[in-house]
Amino acid sequence: MDKPVILVTNDDGITAPGIRALVEAVKDFGKVVVVAPDSPQSGQGHALTLNDPLRLRKVDIFGDIEAYECSGTPVDCVKLAKDVVLENRAADICVSGVNHGSNASINIIYSGTVSAAMEASLEGINSIGFSLLDYAHDADFEPAKKYIRQLVRYVLDNGLQKTKLLNVNIPDLPADEIKGIKICRQANGKWVEEFARAEDPHGRPYYWLTGKFINPDTGTDTDVWALENGYISVVPSQHDLTAYEAIDELTGKL
Amino acid sequence: MDKPVILVTNDDGITAPGIRALVEAVKDFGKVVVVAPDSPQSGQGHALTLNDPLRLRKVDIFGDIEAYECSGTPVDCVKLAKDVVLENRAADICVSGVNHGSNASINIIYSGTVSAAMEASLEGINSIGFSLLDYAHDADFEPAKKYIRQLVRYVLDNGLQKTKLLNVNIPDLPADEIKGIKICRQANGKWVEEFARAEDPHGRPYYWLTGKFINPDTGTDTDVWALENGYISVVPSQHDLTAYEAIDELTGKL
Repeated sequence: MDKPVILVTNDDGITAPGIRALVEAVKDFGKVVVVAPDSPQSGQGHALTLNDPLRLRKVDIFGDIEAYECSGTPVDCVKLAKDVVLENRAADICVSGVNHGSNASINIIYSGTVSAAMEASLEGINSIGFSLLDYAHDADFEPAKKYIRQLVRYVLDNGLQKTKLLNVNIPDLPADEIKGIKICRQANGKWVEEFARAEDPHGRPYYWLTGKFINPDTGTDTDVWALENGYISVVPSQHDLTAYEAIDELTGKL
Repeated sequence: MDKPVILVTNDDGITAPGIRALVEAVKDFGKVVVVAPDSPQSGQGHALTLNDPLRLRKVDIFGDIEAYECSGTPVDCVKLAKDVVLENRAADICVSGVNHGSNASINIIYSGTVSAAMEASLEGINSIGFSLLDYAHDADFEPAKKYIRQLVRYVLDNGLQKTKLLNVNIPDLPADEIKGIKICRQANGKWVEEFARAEDPHGRPYYWLTGKFINPDTGTDTDVWALENGYISVVPSQHDLTAYEAIDELTGKL
């Protein structure tokens, strides 16, 4: 049997330490192919590049591992990987990350990391987005690697049946303080924005988006709860946004 | 009672005919405030602008209606509208569009139009994304207006209980061929990419993203079915991406 093809991408860009940690964690599980953005793409969500052409350049920054940097978004990377790099041979798994910072709760919808994995899942490929709750460039990814390997091994061996996408967040803790893995639902939190207003030298205002995350969801079955209590959170996730319980509310009313 | 505040945005940009049609359709229902991108933002999904400042400029292109163009994404527009333009007074409804082209099925996850409405829904604001299945600049939005008014009137009068977000698509048909409104689920379709490869004058390749939509989902309860059969599709939608049916599959296995 051929070695499994493992597609690796991220949203922090191909030179980020997180993707290097992810490549190191999975490289002996199969043939690794990296296609990742050539610049930081955090917060790009499921954005596509429709109005500009895309560049794809082979790079040699992961030793003997085949790798390409792409001028587009994380979702563009996955599409180019499938069509151009892998020439429509399906990857056996797509792993995205390791993101520098949380993609728990509502962060999933803004996340380029998870959106890239979701894009692969649309192709029927088992996909995992990994994030570490540490924004620092010199974040310590070592404790995460054991769990990344455990999750990737499980998915390669067993597949994912009911959905093809896992959103995995890893607490910023030393290895001996991580309690294990919890399967969770997405906490119903949100961001409260606080725009920082400034003026340019011509007196014209501009705004920087900042904010803080709040989570009024007190459930102990959520990803936020798991992370706050020392667990790695795994949220099986999907691309069907239908609010099924609202169909009855509206049927016959309009 | 004060007139309801109606926030209008889109992803095709503030000069697109679709947003003008939407403003015209809803302007006598309340106080309309427009905050929309200053350039086309199709396919931007739930992208945020994190690494650049945002500009917001008052414009006078909708007669006596207060309007601003923003340098960011559709989601940025909604955030700036809430914090800066409305100064944290909540809008009573957010309407986004009318998008030039379909946002049915999987298009919802790539759609700046629906993502803007989703962003408002996260603030507890009843929100509707409208799309017309005609990409042409000179698309005829007249037949859509009657239904836009019917939907906005319903939501202003009754609110939305089980979810705060509706994804509405309108077939490209003359008024007398539209059969009415159907409440639907999101069809499980996807895009099959076909990158167009070209070379620049220096012999370096670049790629344009193109593709075609395919829908293997044969359900008669989907948005794609409704649209193909002459109905306006309304999919109540949500931001919780948890695949609940997969939680049992994985619990205890990892």
